[in-house]
Amino acid sequence: MSSMKYDIIIIGCGISGMTAAIYALRSDKSVLILEKESIGGQISSSPLIENYPGYQKISGMELSNNLYEQVINLGGVIELEEVTEIKIGKEKEVITTDNTYKSDAIIIATGAKHRLLGLENEINLIGNGIHFCVTCDGAFYKDKDVCVVGGGNSAVTNALMLSDICKNVYIIQNLDDLTAEKTLKDRINKKENVTIYYESSVKEIKGEEELEEIVISTKDEKEKKLKVDGMFISIGLEPQSNFVKQLLKVNNFDYIESDENCMTNIKGIFVAGDVRSKKVRQLTTAVNDGTIAAIEAVEYINNL
Amino acid sequence: MSSMKYDIIIIGCGISGMTAAIYALRSDKSVLILEKESIGGQISSSPLIENYPGYQKISGMELSNNLYEQVINLGGVIELEEVTEIKIGKEKEVITTDNTYKSDAIIIATGAKHRLLGLENEINLIGNGIHFCVTCDGAFYKDKDVCVVGGGNSAVTNALMLSDICKNVYIIQNLDDLTAEKTLKDRINKKENVTIYYESSVKEIKGEEELEEIVISTKDEKEKKLKVDGMFISIGLEPQSNFVKQLLKVNNFDYIESDENCMTNIKGIFVAGDVRSKKVRQLTTAVNDGTIAAIEAVEYINNL
Repeated sequence: MSSMKYDIIIIGCGISGMTAAIYALRSDKSVLILEKESIGGQISSSPLIENYPGYQKISGMELSNNLYEQVINLGGVIELEEVTEIKIGKEKEVITTDNTYKSDAIIIATGAKHRLLGLENEINLIGNGIHFCVTCDGAFYKDKDVCVVGGGNSAVTNALMLSDICKNVYIIQNLDDLTAEKTLKDRINKKENVTIYYESSVKEIKGEEELEEIVISTKDEKEKKLKVDGMFISIGLEPQSNFVKQLLKVNNFDYIESDENCMTNIKGIFVAGDVRSKKVRQLTTAVNDGTIAAIEAVEYINNL
Repeated sequence: MSSMKYDIIIIGCGISGMTAAIYALRSDKSVLILEKESIGGQISSSPLIENYPGYQKISGMELSNNLYEQVINLGGVIELEEVTEIKIGKEKEVITTDNTYKSDAIIIATGAKHRLLGLENEINLIGNGIHFCVTCDGAFYKDKDVCVVGGGNSAVTNALMLSDICKNVYIIQNLDDLTAEKTLKDRINKKENVTIYYESSVKEIKGEEELEEIVISTKDEKEKKLKVDGMFISIGLEPQSNFVKQLLKVNNFDYIESDENCMTNIKGIFVAGDVRSKKVRQLTTAVNDGTIAAIEAVEYINNL
């Protein structure tokens, strides 16, 4: 059991965590990043990003690798260990499956995971027909046929945005009504190129390299094949906050709450990126949070 | 006098404004960017950026050019015209020195300008010895000698950060005391590698390609030469908000106020980037604001 001390421990090695590391390291603080799965986080599985300012086109993997290089070149340490607990005392203790580390400040940047349908083929086709974010990937489906799975606010918002761009939009909703707010429902019902399948669910996803077709079971239990170029799954996100839910204030959906400077209810613990309670979750808002959390963490340490 | 109508008019073609354009264009809105000086804004004069996530090193000019290409490829229109007034009616009118344009939403991203000393050589050496932002450029002066001009909170904060990295830090303050808050003053006075020159001002800046030396006039009216590798000018920023000060709520320092979704006190007018009232002004926070302002502007228009 080692018990190394760092100025700042960042939990999560996605875009937000690595941005925080870059800013903290450039302020001459020692930084450890702990990551339970893989470097880069959610964006790594995105084959093509066209809305990150500064790159015409870049893959998620390439963007993550670039940040990884920045962090390593500045002297950041990255360990692949899962954090199980944070203890608060005079110093902060971060306990992982393998070690206990100490630090003065902690930045939580563990992200959020999209809920999946749990179907064969689904994970393989993420980025090649299966997507979660219309703001990010909707533009790839201009004049094409797409479906949205889900019926809440984000599903209907996604369908509305897609209906402006795409030829046909199918909404697959398991209930007998949309659960989105009335104004959204009113607007989607007026769209001529949107078809809503109620009490329906996706049974099968077809396609080898790219999504080609889905099979849905409809209201009357019949199977129906839909040719779609893209499918946007909008059945919710799971913020990765379980390990700190006893310690930190979270909202009704388990996102960690913070003030506008990314400070949580515990002094010296900051939150950045998709796991943070906020409205817009994009690469650009992730780098914003990482920057602010790091600047505030450095200021917090300097004032100790 | 033309009177073209766009969905969204963005005022200011810096990083924040161009990010807003990328997001709005990808949501299939028509976008006009109006810029009074040069494309890219403040960052264009920065020869080397090392803290923008995704690039090990990039010049400000190159980064701006990349965003410019993104905007143009998506069909954005950029005009070099100065906006003199905004009029609010059923539609919004943006009046420039040359034309009147109409739009449903406006995003103000006019930035802020650093106050200068007004000395010969000063503008030429910006980026080559003369800087404004320690968080951005301080790391280039590790183990070197630098000076900070100014005595307020941001000057002393800059000097504190530099004192951790640099060999010697000189503060040049025109008054007989620092105006920074007490805790900052207490901390700076404890630093052994910081020398403060009170009632002093910079008279001359020497160096051809790079900053080499400054001449200051000290308390007793004597001239003193200081060899410095870097000079950080911290005498304030001027947010570029004059043209909308009658219309929009600004804070005591003329930054435009907004809610956390970048909406100003007038519906359909949003603010993004350095001209916005906020704490941290970095490239990463500029792209954040641009993204949020554009997403909110699109939502605002869709709900009209």
